[in-house]
Amino acid sequence: MRIGVWLIGARGSVATTVVAGAAAVRAGLAPATGCVTEGDDFAAAGLPALGDLVFGGHDLAETCLPKRAEQLARSGVLPERLPELIQDDLLAADAEIRPGAGAAGAGPRTQAEVAAALAADIGAFRERRAIDRVVVINVASTEPPCAPHPAHDSLPALAAALESAGPAAGAAAGVLPPSSLYAYAALSSGCAYVDFTPSTGARLPAIDELAHTRGVPYAGSDGKTGETLVRSVLAPMFARRALRVRSWSGTNLLGGGDGATLGDPAAAASKNASKQRVLGETLGYPIDGEVHIDYVGDLGDWKTAWDHILFDGFLGARMTLQFTWQGCDSALAAPLVLDLARLMARAHETGRSGAVSELAFFFKDPIGTTEHDLAAQYETLRTWAGAL
Amino acid sequence: MRIGVWLIGARGSVATTVVAGAAAVRAGLAPATGCVTEGDDFAAAGLPALGDLVFGGHDLAETCLPKRAEQLARSGVLPERLPELIQDDLLAADAEIRPGAGAAGAGPRTQAEVAAALAADIGAFRERRAIDRVVVINVASTEPPCAPHPAHDSLPALAAALESAGPAAGAAAGVLPPSSLYAYAALSSGCAYVDFTPSTGARLPAIDELAHTRGVPYAGSDGKTGETLVRSVLAPMFARRALRVRSWSGTNLLGGGDGATLGDPAAAASKNASKQRVLGETLGYPIDGEVHIDYVGDLGDWKTAWDHILFDGFLGARMTLQFTWQGCDSALAAPLVLDLARLMARAHETGRSGAVSELAFFFKDPIGTTEHDLAAQYETLRTWAGAL
Amino acid sequence: MRIGVWLIGARGSVATTVVAGAAAVRAGLAPATGCVTEGDDFAAAGLPALGDLVFGGHDLAETCLPKRAEQLARSGVLPERLPELIQDDLLAADAEIRPGAGAAGAGPRTQAEVAAALAADIGAFRERRAIDRVVVINVASTEPPCAPHPAHDSLPALAAALESAGPAAGAAAGVLPPSSLYAYAALSSGCAYVDFTPSTGARLPAIDELAHTRGVPYAGSDGKTGETLVRSVLAPMFARRALRVRSWSGTNLLGGGDGATLGDPAAAASKNASKQRVLGETLGYPIDGEVHIDYVGDLGDWKTAWDHILFDGFLGARMTLQFTWQGCDSALAAPLVLDLARLMARAHETGRSGAVSELAFFFKDPIGTTEHDLAAQYETLRTWAGAL
Amino acid sequence: MRIGVWLIGARGSVATTVVAGAAAVRAGLAPATGCVTEGDDFAAAGLPALGDLVFGGHDLAETCLPKRAEQLARSGVLPERLPELIQDDLLAADAEIRPGAGAAGAGPRTQAEVAAALAADIGAFRERRAIDRVVVINVASTEPPCAPHPAHDSLPALAAALESAGPAAGAAAGVLPPSSLYAYAALSSGCAYVDFTPSTGARLPAIDELAHTRGVPYAGSDGKTGETLVRSVLAPMFARRALRVRSWSGTNLLGGGDGATLGDPAAAASKNASKQRVLGETLGYPIDGEVHIDYVGDLGDWKTAWDHILFDGFLGARMTLQFTWQGCDSALAAPLVLDLARLMARAHETGRSGAVSELAFFFKDPIGTTEHDLAAQYETLRTWAGAL
Repeated sequence: MRIGVWLIGARGSVATTVVAGAAAVRAGLAPATGCVTEGDDFAAAGLPALGDLVFGGHDLAETCLPKRAEQLARSGVLPERLPELIQDDLLAADAEIRPGAGAAGAGPRTQAEVAAALAADIGAFRERRAIDRVVVINVASTEPPCAPHPAHDSLPALAAALESAGPAAGAAAGVLPPSSLYAYAALSSGCAYVDFTPSTGARLPAIDELAHTRGVPYAGSDGKTGETLVRSVLAPMFARRALRVRSWSGTNLLGGGDGATLGDPAAAASKNASKQRVLGETLGYPIDGEVHIDYVGDLGDWKTAWDHILFDGFLGARMTLQFTWQGCDSALAAPLVLDLARLMARAHETGRSGAVSELAFFFKDPIGTTEHDLAAQYETLRTWAGAL
Repeated sequence: MRIGVWLIGARGSVATTVVAGAAAVRAGLAPATGCVTEGDDFAAAGLPALGDLVFGGHDLAETCLPKRAEQLARSGVLPERLPELIQDDLLAADAEIRPGAGAAGAGPRTQAEVAAALAADIGAFRERRAIDRVVVINVASTEPPCAPHPAHDSLPALAAALESAGPAAGAAAGVLPPSSLYAYAALSSGCAYVDFTPSTGARLPAIDELAHTRGVPYAGSDGKTGETLVRSVLAPMFARRALRVRSWSGTNLLGGGDGATLGDPAAAASKNASKQRVLGETLGYPIDGEVHIDYVGDLGDWKTAWDHILFDGFLGARMTLQFTWQGCDSALAAPLVLDLARLMARAHETGRSGAVSELAFFFKDPIGTTEHDLAAQYETLRTWAGAL
Repeated sequence: MRIGVWLIGARGSVATTVVAGAAAVRAGLAPATGCVTEGDDFAAAGLPALGDLVFGGHDLAETCLPKRAEQLARSGVLPERLPELIQDDLLAADAEIRPGAGAAGAGPRTQAEVAAALAADIGAFRERRAIDRVVVINVASTEPPCAPHPAHDSLPALAAALESAGPAAGAAAGVLPPSSLYAYAALSSGCAYVDFTPSTGARLPAIDELAHTRGVPYAGSDGKTGETLVRSVLAPMFARRALRVRSWSGTNLLGGGDGATLGDPAAAASKNASKQRVLGETLGYPIDGEVHIDYVGDLGDWKTAWDHILFDGFLGARMTLQFTWQGCDSALAAPLVLDLARLMARAHETGRSGAVSELAFFFKDPIGTTEHDLAAQYETLRTWAGAL
Repeated sequence: MRIGVWLIGARGSVATTVVAGAAAVRAGLAPATGCVTEGDDFAAAGLPALGDLVFGGHDLAETCLPKRAEQLARSGVLPERLPELIQDDLLAADAEIRPGAGAAGAGPRTQAEVAAALAADIGAFRERRAIDRVVVINVASTEPPCAPHPAHDSLPALAAALESAGPAAGAAAGVLPPSSLYAYAALSSGCAYVDFTPSTGARLPAIDELAHTRGVPYAGSDGKTGETLVRSVLAPMFARRALRVRSWSGTNLLGGGDGATLGDPAAAASKNASKQRVLGETLGYPIDGEVHIDYVGDLGDWKTAWDHILFDGFLGARMTLQFTWQGCDSALAAPLVLDLARLMARAHETGRSGAVSELAFFFKDPIGTTEHDLAAQYETLRTWAGAL
């Protein structure tokens, strides 16, 4: 069995780490640290092996994967000598990268035409590499929140609107934001789709309808790689111990591409609101406090989050918990992307279609559930994978 | 139904907060924050109400509960005006406090005689207050680790040795350390027993035999009130995400009586070893790092813990998580003591005897299980309580 | 010698702590912790004694000082029993509080008329209490940044404009914001003036001219009570060690009145810009990073600041320093207000007029100097006080 | 002018970074970040240029400097490609490294003979490389505290005792610990000597006498590279603001060679005691609290320190300051070693002999002064250097 992993943002830090890491683990150069599906609980789930994965994707950027890998090695994300040891794998994946939706084409096109071109790229990849099944995963930069549009609510309306809508490159003119156009193209061509970013992606009724119509699964959204991961165990701790959280404040400092995007107040909005909502859903009451996302370029691929939680104990005794998380987003995201590729390929194989809410474990803002307790999410995942 | 709660260390900060808090909640002066058994999951478990609890205990200290409560109000543990509002409850409990095992008696006695006297105190309390069932809970200061003795291994040998052993006050001469003598007295007289401290208490084969012989339950040990609570959700988080913990270091600063005791290297030993062992049992491999417990008198009833966790992500990327916990031990412990009193009274009522491992949720070093994941412990507790 | 201390915001937390603290220290109920001028370096400076200070002020709030002191005792700012022990002092000060500029008067008035009324309040206080010299100190809530006005640039123009300007209560209509109107009234009536807030106050050319014309000193602005205090020693540390700061980020969580004001983005602007500018002036190059001020009501009078500093060592090795400051603003501000009252009274006595830049030690945004190194500021202060 | 820098521990991380860093700065490959003497305040002090420095030293380790530099590049202490760019400089320094005091010689020798052999190594270096003046700097691992010996008190007694004392390798048999034997050899042969570690080194009356007799300067001890650096600005901050420190606790996590040495309780003793003493000397009263040094191997050359400071403000309001320092010891130490080499060479040139207390700025435990305020130390240094 050969599984294609088609990455939107295929030359970004996360995608580069995905490709480099899969090669490194396959070659025995590194342990599969951070890969959840390598654990005993998933041994009998019939998942494809890491060695079955074939990589390609869309990206406008032109710096090739071997060069990107060297940059990541220099900033400590990849081991120093890894890029040269797995150069063949990097080159093979790089050869399967196409410019995608933002590419300058031959004059203005409708979004329907763009989607067809994206689907054609994926189809050609599948054929060329003799792939059984493709999982499309969005690891591109976060988009600003998307403006509502009446065509988002039904598939026929959407299909019609795309025929007349302007090119995706002029976002204002598009019916769908880029992430959703990719989701549309992926699902249309019978590929599973995963939103690893907070962008809109498949989270529109029309696109959900498409997934059911085509009988393909999708999952998302927003990979849980840092502050929210910790929150997803601490918030249930307070709940189980009946301690009353008074306020929960957070500051995130991040460099890299995503930092620059999220540092922008408008783009940060979708991320922030979701963070505080998750706390409220877990604890059962609204939580005071703000979340800041600051761009600090010199942090590069690294991220620091500080959270301050004020809570009451018995008889109102006022206490605090603070934590500081210093992590590398790419190194945290990449193994989850591999996990999702394997799980979604298998879900697709077993005939699952529509939103796969059982994958909530991987996401900050899981589709189809308000369960945010990591332990409960893991149990759901384990049970589901055991029954695949 | 009237349930007696007999506290070893009945004039300490935890015990004072237990008595004051139960009165405050009963009187509607404060919400039951931190009381796990007040949650919906326990509504149908047939637990005694807070208003059914009657307090008494052993303590050598002579400062009465109203005065202790005022001291705690001054240091912010109790609400400012609470002590005067619940003075009657404090006085009623104070009237039921006896000096206990360390009391200067009429000349030297054997440990068997001391145990009988302790049991007599509890029996008189039961009769005087028309109590159906008594739960004895040890909330005294932590003892140094206890020296092994051959009589610890069987009940007949223990009973014989106690007949000849010197008084508990001369610890060296005793077969049993004070905490175990209290457990012996409690179980002998048909009372449930709970170790809320890391002291030896009921954790000896001979005492376990006694519990089974008498058909009474016991539970312990070492209430999970701070750093270990946070560890019990963070360690499973690393495990579930397949992240590799490299080292886990901790520093605890605490004032108050327990601080002075645990600042002593010998007495800290039992607490430290247990903390790192718990991490290893959760993660499945031994963990590098030390835990320090420093006495800082000016912190009073407050405690600060700093933990530093070094871990590897994908491809060995080195990351850290740090947390600082600033809590009030008495305010964290007291609601758990109330929970345990209610749960153990009910377990006793249903005929349970021996170690109740289903209460692991409450303890740093749970008897009868190596499950340290708070979420799993809660599930076990919930299921068990549901079946009571 | 009797020195009047006239507080703008005389019933706020800072002012209440000032009055209560002066009384407590005078009565021997508390040490003069935090009072810089009680140190040996100031013994020979001819400063008035704490016992020489007489308090009064302006405030629209009507909750009397004894009640405010009780509230502060309840939240741990003042010692529990202090308010009753010094009730006479609180009542005496409370009797000298007038409603001030925002008071509903008999119909519309010009700002000139309001200023005259304020000056009359101060003058009556001086006479009534047989005071030699009055220091007016602004400890009211922070104002939003003030719009420029051509009359701000010269005293005659200002005097003329005030005659026709609307009442201060309608801020839009006023030539001067309230803080500046208080400064104008204070200096006009020959009193020294101190800006303990970041509000505009005396920082206008026309008001500086007034101070020189009247021969009275003024000082400011924005008392250095927390995060900036720590920054004022850490930034010079990096400079002296030739370490290169890459970014300096800060998050401030604060409750209380000032928290609510500063949580508002517009009002926070004057505070934020000044914080990063101070770093740049100390280090000699612009510093990346943002400062957030979040209102967290449950923190009450307490404040938590987290700073994250990313810096380079030799050969570009990337390092970090983080700190968390948990302080009580009123308890930090009050002794500095007493210091400033004593120092300004003495400066006035020695004939000093205009901005007293030698008091930079006390301020986040010192008037008349760009020296932000606490050690250098202290040396300047010590030398200046020694020569008084 | 050519200045020899003879490093004890010449193949350790600090020494390797010193040699690599001097070469990198000289070649324009890196800025002189962290080099205090590159600042304007030292431009006119007549210091030798970085390009005037010639490196050699003693070390038993046999891993050559190019290999050590590669290891440091791999762990992020040196820039990735630096070692190959400056290979000639590394090889040149490596060729001047001799095994030193611990070397297996031709049978047992007295400490006097060992000292003579060490001095001969330095003398040969000086001659071979046509060096004007040599500064010997101890950057070896920390020794355990040294046992007192009567011969430590006078130079004639020491000289006599060394004649009969066993070899330094058998530490128990030696009159002098290794660091002091190196100091003896250095000063005896007319070289300036610097203790960059907390080992005994030159801090014995007999060795001070030797320095005066030979007319050479020495300095020390224990380079201020992390936690103590921050303490040396924070403690004076509390003092200047008259805030009362109640406790100051610290935990240091460090890997690398020094971590393994200092993790040992005996060897940590000299470091710990000095840290709390420094606080007391700065604040003027004894400070509660402990300092822990834990070895965490996986931290490699990196170090994390957490400090918790409990302090009182006005009227006893209890506040805290915590900081976390994450630094690379070698990258912090190396530029200071270069500073000290330049300053001591110049001090020697101007005829200075004995302890140079004006260099306190660089040291945790400065010889000849109890001034621990970084700002005051800098002023002293600047003034002294200006007069050289």
